[in-house]
Amino acid sequence: MGISMDWEVVGYAAAALTMFGFLPQLLKMVRTKSVDDVSLLMMVQMGLGVSLWLAYGLHLENSPLIVANFVSLSILALGLVVYFRYTTNRYLTRRYFR
Amino acid sequence: MGISMDWEVVGYAAAALTMFGFLPQLLKMVRTKSVDDVSLLMMVQMGLGVSLWLAYGLHLENSPLIVANFVSLSILALGLVVYFRYTTNRYLTRRYFR
Repeated sequence: MGISMDWEVVGYAAAALTMFGFLPQLLKMVRTKSVDDVSLLMMVQMGLGVSLWLAYGLHLENSPLIVANFVSLSILALGLVVYFRYTTNRYLTRRYFR
Repeated sequence: MGISMDWEVVGYAAAALTMFGFLPQLLKMVRTKSVDDVSLLMMVQMGLGVSLWLAYGLHLENSPLIVANFVSLSILALGLVVYFRYTTNRYLTRRYFR
């Protein structure tokens, strides 16, 4: 770092942090079995956005874009499963679990 | 779209969705005043990651990277303020509000 700071390292650190950004939320939902303050729309919107980034990455054949967004999408997909498992929202539980 | 699909549009749509990805969570926290299922670590990790992306974007003088991550960081920062306002976590309320 310092004068000869390697900016590539900053980029990789940024990518690692945001790529796994939803992981703490997933683990918290699994641990507490309590999800009702979490925004379903946030998960759906991020999932859709990350899916489009993945499609864009596949189109560009850009490996970092593909890997990062595949990881993010996997964590978000698991998050959705856990959310529907534990939500007490009556509309959602009626619709999907009866 | 179709055969002459404009992939730039896919990239911009992806950017818009993920850039504002935390906004539904922020609005939900403001509306419900209930934040205890939300992961503080998620917000801190995403905030740190997005800050590094912003620094990387400033270094590269890349406008899309700067704009997208400045927006994300602003939403996350507001999210942190709202989280600390409404959390009932005793350790956090003791530490910051007494």
